[in-house]
Amino acid sequence: MWNVYLSGEIHSDWREQIQKGTEDAGLDIEFSGPVTDHEKSDDVGEVIFGKEDRQFWRDHKAAKINGIRIRKAIQDADLVVVRFGEKFKQWNAAFDAGYAHALGIPIVTLHNEELVHPLKEIDSVADGTAQDPSQIVELLKYLLKEY
Amino acid sequence: MWNVYLSGEIHSDWREQIQKGTEDAGLDIEFSGPVTDHEKSDDVGEVIFGKEDRQFWRDHKAAKINGIRIRKAIQDADLVVVRFGEKFKQWNAAFDAGYAHALGIPIVTLHNEELVHPLKEIDSVADGTAQDPSQIVELLKYLLKEY
Amino acid sequence: MWNVYLSGEIHSDWREQIQKGTEDAGLDIEFSGPVTDHEKSDDVGEVIFGKEDRQFWRDHKAAKINGIRIRKAIQDADLVVVRFGEKFKQWNAAFDAGYAHALGIPIVTLHNEELVHPLKEIDSVADGTAQDPSQIVELLKYLLKEY
Amino acid sequence: MWNVYLSGEIHSDWREQIQKGTEDAGLDIEFSGPVTDHEKSDDVGEVIFGKEDRQFWRDHKAAKINGIRIRKAIQDADLVVVRFGEKFKQWNAAFDAGYAHALGIPIVTLHNEELVHPLKEIDSVADGTAQDPSQIVELLKYLLKEY
Amino acid sequence: MWNVYLSGEIHSDWREQIQKGTEDAGLDIEFSGPVTDHEKSDDVGEVIFGKEDRQFWRDHKAAKINGIRIRKAIQDADLVVVRFGEKFKQWNAAFDAGYAHALGIPIVTLHNEELVHPLKEIDSVADGTAQDPSQIVELLKYLLKEY
Amino acid sequence: MWNVYLSGEIHSDWREQIQKGTEDAGLDIEFSGPVTDHEKSDDVGEVIFGKEDRQFWRDHKAAKINGIRIRKAIQDADLVVVRFGEKFKQWNAAFDAGYAHALGIPIVTLHNEELVHPLKEIDSVADGTAQDPSQIVELLKYLLKEY
Amino acid sequence: MWNVYLSGEIHSDWREQIQKGTEDAGLDIEFSGPVTDHEKSDDVGEVIFGKEDRQFWRDHKAAKINGIRIRKAIQDADLVVVRFGEKFKQWNAAFDAGYAHALGIPIVTLHNEELVHPLKEIDSVADGTAQDPSQIVELLKYLLKEY
Amino acid sequence: MWNVYLSGEIHSDWREQIQKGTEDAGLDIEFSGPVTDHEKSDDVGEVIFGKEDRQFWRDHKAAKINGIRIRKAIQDADLVVVRFGEKFKQWNAAFDAGYAHALGIPIVTLHNEELVHPLKEIDSVADGTAQDPSQIVELLKYLLKEY
Repeated sequence: MWNVYLSGEIHSDWREQIQKGTEDAGLDIEFSGPVTDHEKSDDVGEVIFGKEDRQFWRDHKAAKINGIRIRKAIQDADLVVVRFGEKFKQWNAAFDAGYAHALGIPIVTLHNEELVHPLKEIDSVADGTAQDPSQIVELLKYLLKEY
Repeated sequence: MWNVYLSGEIHSDWREQIQKGTEDAGLDIEFSGPVTDHEKSDDVGEVIFGKEDRQFWRDHKAAKINGIRIRKAIQDADLVVVRFGEKFKQWNAAFDAGYAHALGIPIVTLHNEELVHPLKEIDSVADGTAQDPSQIVELLKYLLKEY
Repeated sequence: MWNVYLSGEIHSDWREQIQKGTEDAGLDIEFSGPVTDHEKSDDVGEVIFGKEDRQFWRDHKAAKINGIRIRKAIQDADLVVVRFGEKFKQWNAAFDAGYAHALGIPIVTLHNEELVHPLKEIDSVADGTAQDPSQIVELLKYLLKEY
Repeated sequence: MWNVYLSGEIHSDWREQIQKGTEDAGLDIEFSGPVTDHEKSDDVGEVIFGKEDRQFWRDHKAAKINGIRIRKAIQDADLVVVRFGEKFKQWNAAFDAGYAHALGIPIVTLHNEELVHPLKEIDSVADGTAQDPSQIVELLKYLLKEY
Repeated sequence: MWNVYLSGEIHSDWREQIQKGTEDAGLDIEFSGPVTDHEKSDDVGEVIFGKEDRQFWRDHKAAKINGIRIRKAIQDADLVVVRFGEKFKQWNAAFDAGYAHALGIPIVTLHNEELVHPLKEIDSVADGTAQDPSQIVELLKYLLKEY
Repeated sequence: MWNVYLSGEIHSDWREQIQKGTEDAGLDIEFSGPVTDHEKSDDVGEVIFGKEDRQFWRDHKAAKINGIRIRKAIQDADLVVVRFGEKFKQWNAAFDAGYAHALGIPIVTLHNEELVHPLKEIDSVADGTAQDPSQIVELLKYLLKEY
Repeated sequence: MWNVYLSGEIHSDWREQIQKGTEDAGLDIEFSGPVTDHEKSDDVGEVIFGKEDRQFWRDHKAAKINGIRIRKAIQDADLVVVRFGEKFKQWNAAFDAGYAHALGIPIVTLHNEELVHPLKEIDSVADGTAQDPSQIVELLKYLLKEY
Repeated sequence: MWNVYLSGEIHSDWREQIQKGTEDAGLDIEFSGPVTDHEKSDDVGEVIFGKEDRQFWRDHKAAKINGIRIRKAIQDADLVVVRFGEKFKQWNAAFDAGYAHALGIPIVTLHNEELVHPLKEIDSVADGTAQDPSQIVELLKYLLKEY
């Protein structure tokens, strides 16, 4: 069984495409990823540990909780797919990539041609760079097939 | 002696401000950082290992060479300061932060108030967040002073 | 499945509250913790390995046996909750926190407002600080929910 | 050359006694320890990174800065001496002991007879327990002598 | 249960001999190895991630994908058997041996007498050197038998 | 479930006593140990990998094979019990203890009173020292009981 | 200061070219490598530890001694350059590459165009591939220059 | 510069022979070893930390202090030479060998022919086995010579 962490963009359905594709292929993969309910993820610090006056601490408390969840999932992963979309800074996706790489966990990136230059450092340590989720499905089919 | 890696933005003089401030204070610090000559850094892959037709491989070869230099410097660092500026994606700065954090090396971030929300994941694992390079100088004065 | 170690205070029912709350929520969590039968835990060294004249060695033999049990449980844990009560020194709880932190295992602390200052070092490496066991239940619900 | 970290109590002169004793013996030891100027240590977060309304965040910011300093020193240490005094909670001393032990760094404790029972877990992983700083001096003389 | 990685030569049936021999003996072993469909393994980079003009990048993309698969399997292995045949350079088999050895995973080599001298460095860190797959079967029978 | 490695003496039934005692107590423990068929263990190198003229290489080949088995078992163990009997050098038992200790795996020793002085270095890193196998059974009952 | 290990081919003067080039450039580099006196390296086992009847053990004893030297040098290296020549199997060079990679030490390969296909696995984890020693000199100039 | 730990027998002058031989050869080696003043080593626990009634704790306290010294020296060593003499159990030498091996530090053993069988497990992980200290001198000359 493989554990695959799907890091990055939460505003498109790329995770579902990969999960559906690999399920259709009958692959035994456990997927994990960040909390994709944006609001819930942003609010969780205050919801559980109490209100804050400053935005910094509000974000801090939420990010620390999400960090527990994300770090466990990345540490358990055999592969981390890092998706960079068109919008947003997505520094957390780049952070996840650096974190995974330092732990020796392989990374595959997923982004459009126009991001090639700004993502060169991350692509240079990745074991592959895809433009489309269907390529990740093909990759996983290849990796999990018995020979 | 402390080793401090200065990661991120290469288009302002924040590194010089920190270096001058700590030199003026007589602190024994070895600073390291990425190659800040942008053009040289981008071209190095082709210059040393030969021309490429595709931008992807051109960037790849350069990023791998720079990676040798950067990873050694971060691994040797006692502290990594990560600077996010106004412009550019700066995904490599976020990548460095993730890399350092996984190795257990402390991080301090340096960025303006408006980046608080997009940088929450990185700030949440940092041991401090500064808005101005002079605060990093003060931090280093405190950390290195003998008591 | 998550492994959660519940460190610290053994004279109140905070462990039961957390275990009941998460069972009621149907979460798949394996809890572990120190031997909460105080007398048995104190006596075990002499009971198994023989009587001692000095209190120091009596305690030593018991603490070493308990250490085997505790260290295995912390090493296996995905999260360590550290509870500081009103009474007793509870240095072992602080020791567990330091031990877990050095291993890279996330910590959440659980204590009253008045302990904020003396616990600042431990809280500063924790990924959250709760005042009530019900907050730990909410945290675990969030961490284990599938998205 | 040996590096020795002196953890714990900051309200008596035990550090000076050890340092003087080993200097008198001509031993080549680099000592480190926490910032012993209590006020400066408590204030440093606000002084460098700005004011906070809540005591929790005030302490948090200071403790994180001190943590950079302490963790580096413990990681570099060949031996950690942990002193527990009569007063204060001293949970940070116990935390340091747990942190050092998980890293495989030897610990020696220094405390009075009446703390034997509450410190049994920490003493049980220590390589020695002293009542008086002069014993630490004797220990270091023995450890550093050439045979 | 044991995990055994079978590294090296893909042009003879040595893997099948070992697998059949241990199945016949009723041993509970999970075998893994590289993709033995040579063409598929060479083509996979271009098939999944797109065509390349240069042979170097064509091979590079395929080798990186195969590397994800191989490294995971070696990391999970309790034993790595490294087979060197008569033909081909087989540098990847030697690379696997170095990789496994650095991770502390035991290696057994499998090669003919005439390769003794050129393989001396690898044999010198191996826990055994066989000439015939049947010896590996005997070895596994011995290692897995309950006493 | 606990994994316990039983290292040392192979000429008495101490392993059986411990296994029977814990089975009777219904404990879920997986025991492992060296091959206790002395002759088989000594001969295995030649039997599998061929005859040798010198005793040194004969022993070498056998010891390397046994080493694969032993190291895997110790690495998987939660506890290593090391038994020193009256006869034989038993340097392999002491070696196992050093190996386990460096990996951070707890050790309990089992030997008679008269071996206290020559075993002081090993006992000093053990978490307990027993004279009789029944004490190991009691220890395991305590360690595995749920509280 | 950088430590660079020069692995592989011992029958051409590529090491001297690199060392001379970097000395001429005034770079502060400590080079290490295998014993390049082929005969001495092959004989050392018997010379120090005594004659053997079989070629296997003769090689074994020499390779183990050389292994002490090589592994220390690779572990200390910041960069490993792996040279594959036209002749000989050079499995030890490939082994060194695998060993260095598992330790996280960056590799640069040095070989002719015709070896691209058989070396694809090793090149795929290298941070650069050169055809000529002068390119390694240029690389080191870039890596060590202060910016 | 090399660090070499000389473990084992303290009742003959083998350490002096090695040190003299390498000094005469002008080698830059830092030797370390246990405290060879037997009485001082046995008494140190009581001398520094106070009298004990039982031999077990007397030895325990001394062995823990010596352990601080020995473990630091082995961890710093590039090579551990383990000497087994005719007399005494020397379990601590075997323990040191296991400890060093688990840390990946190379071992060379030094003992007479008649100890070949009882030391087979330790010899099987050693990178060489000598009968005479002069062979260790030759080994160190070879290892440290520049090529």
